[in-house]
Amino acid sequence: MKKRHSSRGRKQSQPGYHCQGRIWIENNGETFLGFGRVVLLERIREHGSISKAASSMEMSYRHAWDLIDSVNRQAGKPLVTTSRGGKGGGGAQLTKAGERAIKDFANLHQRLATFLEEETEKLSL
Amino acid sequence: MKKRHSSRGRKQSQPGYHCQGRIWIENNGETFLGFGRVVLLERIREHGSISKAASSMEMSYRHAWDLIDSVNRQAGKPLVTTSRGGKGGGGAQLTKAGERAIKDFANLHQRLATFLEEETEKLSL
Repeated sequence: MKKRHSSRGRKQSQPGYHCQGRIWIENNGETFLGFGRVVLLERIREHGSISKAASSMEMSYRHAWDLIDSVNRQAGKPLVTTSRGGKGGGGAQLTKAGERAIKDFANLHQRLATFLEEETEKLSL
Repeated sequence: MKKRHSSRGRKQSQPGYHCQGRIWIENNGETFLGFGRVVLLERIREHGSISKAASSMEMSYRHAWDLIDSVNRQAGKPLVTTSRGGKGGGGAQLTKAGERAIKDFANLHQRLATFLEEETEKLSL
């Protein structure tokens, strides 16, 4: 996902009234997957390392690890696997379930964007 | 609106995976109307006073005033009007535009809830 899920953090503002929104998936009331976690998964795929992925998001390693642990635990099957040893202390890889989670969330995000565009057109402000 | 716009803050958790979301309206990149502002409008209608409305939400008077000022300024016409003097330092009333904003946002919020329910049914986790 290249785009932000909302305009928060965007430098450029859009003229006129616009509906904006956020979406995330909860599991038994706990956050399972949201924009930040999905970006973290994408960065792990890109860097092959939780540590490097965390750095690229200006996130602490500990926080990134906790997020991945939360996601893996809730999914019932790992979305990210790690290997020990080697240079840099081992690596991290996305599983097929991890790839699918990214894709599914991107599609969900796209449907929200369509919903928000439709609602923006309906605004009578 | 009696319901929260998302499960955040809800005591009760729902079993299984659920899509959750938030929605708000921006104007030229600035927040115009969101859940908190709409609740504030409802409380002003209920209490007839920005001060009492703010207290009921554990919000400072200053913050409530800033929010109402932001909403009125952006709407081009006031959603809330105030009158000075009298016991308690005058009152605040919703205008017809204020009533309409509450209603329109409640409808938008309901359509988001429907969207989230539909997306929850599509989840294959």
